[in-house]
Amino acid sequence: MDKYAAYVKFTAKAGERDKLTNILMEAANAAQTVKECELYLINLSEKEPDAVWVTEVWSSADAHKASLDQPETRDSIARAMPLIAGVEAIPLNLLGGKGL
Amino acid sequence: MDKYAAYVKFTAKAGERDKLTNILMEAANAAQTVKECELYLINLSEKEPDAVWVTEVWSSADAHKASLDQPETRDSIARAMPLIAGVEAIPLNLLGGKGL
Repeated sequence: MDKYAAYVKFTAKAGERDKLTNILMEAANAAQTVKECELYLINLSEKEPDAVWVTEVWSSADAHKASLDQPETRDSIARAMPLIAGVEAIPLNLLGGKGL
Repeated sequence: MDKYAAYVKFTAKAGERDKLTNILMEAANAAQTVKECELYLINLSEKEPDAVWVTEVWSSADAHKASLDQPETRDSIARAMPLIAGVEAIPLNLLGGKGL
């Protein structure tokens, strides 16, 4: 399967998690009309109060890369960066399963 | 959102990852007819050769719990256990996004 898949953990600076979450939820909403974006789920972490996990699947690595060049994505990133203490990506090789 | 969501990392014993992956893919296939199971994706890890990550979303925690009592799930678990060196779950509070 040539899809691009990853879990991305954003760790917010103290007190900024909700503002960061809102920006990521806006991004997920904007992705509704982007067919190459197949999954973009926003999760909070029960174990880590400052963490926001994004589950993402794109039709290809190129599609994911191209999305980062979109003006609205650049704007989201610019607004989110000051709120972020750390980013950790877990790149995945999606084999398949139920739901996509 | 009251859905049950988690990332679960299964670490296979040396040389057993592919057998474990097959069992998990069978489980994902069996989940195709289980409407409470909304997402059950099987991923290999580029960083960790013995790891298999499962992305799962269920309609509720109860639905997820009930699934563990199903005979075919018990059978899969029994077949998988000897292949597994470790299991690590990242419980999530799914807020929403695209794809579900």
